[in-house]
Amino acid sequence: MRYALKFAYDGTKFEGYARQPKMITIEGEIIRALKAKSIAQDLQSASRTDRGVSAAGNVIVIETDFALKGIIPALNSELEGIHFHGIAKVPEDFNPRHAEQRWYRYVFLKGHCPPVRELGKASKLFLGEHDFRLLSKKDTGHEKTVLAIDSITFTETGEFVYADIKAQRFLWEMVRRMLSVIVSVAEEKTDAVTVEKLLTGESALKGGIKPLPPENLVLMDVVYDLEFRSVVTGHSYFADEVKSLRGRAEVISLVAEALRGPE
Amino acid sequence: MRYALKFAYDGTKFEGYARQPKMITIEGEIIRALKAKSIAQDLQSASRTDRGVSAAGNVIVIETDFALKGIIPALNSELEGIHFHGIAKVPEDFNPRHAEQRWYRYVFLKGHCPPVRELGKASKLFLGEHDFRLLSKKDTGHEKTVLAIDSITFTETGEFVYADIKAQRFLWEMVRRMLSVIVSVAEEKTDAVTVEKLLTGESALKGGIKPLPPENLVLMDVVYDLEFRSVVTGHSYFADEVKSLRGRAEVISLVAEALRGPE
Repeated sequence: MRYALKFAYDGTKFEGYARQPKMITIEGEIIRALKAKSIAQDLQSASRTDRGVSAAGNVIVIETDFALKGIIPALNSELEGIHFHGIAKVPEDFNPRHAEQRWYRYVFLKGHCPPVRELGKASKLFLGEHDFRLLSKKDTGHEKTVLAIDSITFTETGEFVYADIKAQRFLWEMVRRMLSVIVSVAEEKTDAVTVEKLLTGESALKGGIKPLPPENLVLMDVVYDLEFRSVVTGHSYFADEVKSLRGRAEVISLVAEALRGPE
Repeated sequence: MRYALKFAYDGTKFEGYARQPKMITIEGEIIRALKAKSIAQDLQSASRTDRGVSAAGNVIVIETDFALKGIIPALNSELEGIHFHGIAKVPEDFNPRHAEQRWYRYVFLKGHCPPVRELGKASKLFLGEHDFRLLSKKDTGHEKTVLAIDSITFTETGEFVYADIKAQRFLWEMVRRMLSVIVSVAEEKTDAVTVEKLLTGESALKGGIKPLPPENLVLMDVVYDLEFRSVVTGHSYFADEVKSLRGRAEVISLVAEALRGPE
């Protein structure tokens, strides 16, 4: 049988996504777990996220005779920082690279990014079909660089601003480079004409584009015409990590307060 | 001239406090900076905090001919994760170990510790003078283990509970071991009679005491009969670290949400 499996991970705990000899990567760890549990020898991935980027819903496809109900508990018992939570049977010709849509979310700290109104205005320049060659890490030569952005929205929530970006596919480092330019436009450091030239592949930005840090980016979902069956197994890793990070942030903010000097 | 210097640090970025050959410690880094700037060759520390513990106001004493106003800017330009922010002239016989009071704060996440009322009740057992020998990492033999706790208070603030503990001095790992027992009493896992025996040095806890994790503890201040002059210099390190930790916590909580399954 062929299955699509949906899974989450903390990207900061691995040396990138794609398998690499002698490196602890997300794909490499999953292959190790698949072999350890005699489920499969190989897999195909939907999205090779950039090093440091996390996911709530990336997808792999495997071929296996393992009982459907046993696959996710077996994998999760072998992995830390990676957690499977959905499964769907797929046809023999199903290719996880061909998704209907990919959804990324970038987490800004409120007050550390331009106002949502300005970000929204700047992002309109990027909607629809463009050549994103100059907005990816490098032109690999064999990937089509013309593609369409379905939507970019900015939402304020408590102390954060979410940037949600949806498209059928993205190029290497494209989300973080595009958001970097959107911030620059919203801050009036880059103008619309320059962005137009960038989006036709005509001329790159002077000084290049510094992609936003990967730690704040999450691949939220990869969407197919499939119904994933949700499988919930024990998963204290992520809850514990959130708890520990919130505590650490509070501790360091107490330290930072001491440096402000008298009022 | 002899000066007391007040400083803050992120304890998680160093391999402990006390100088150690070949290790990056807080004291070691400060000595390196003092030498690099030709300010002094040595120092005396007020508190050797446990590995992983941070500080808002630890204190060192140095002898130097360096101009008072230049000392803190010179040191801060050499250090990362350690930041000086106060200075006071002290008499020749001033010993930083002899403080009037030391103040530690432990940061609990609300909902991940017993109710404040129960913690407050349990902590009353520890107030005043006791033999804390069985509440420290080990009896070094040359340190007096009888000492007095001045106060222990618990305060709820937003998503955290602060435990503030004040005493003239503390033993090795004592704050984290004492709080561990207070939590155990508040959870009714340890009774008052057992604590009494512990505090006379009569009998240790069965199974030992697991100190609470150091990352959530901050040495808030070391108090002397001195007026420290506040010196504010640029310090983006701690603000950047808070920002990065809060963003990371939000990212991982988005990942954790995906694992909850359908409502």
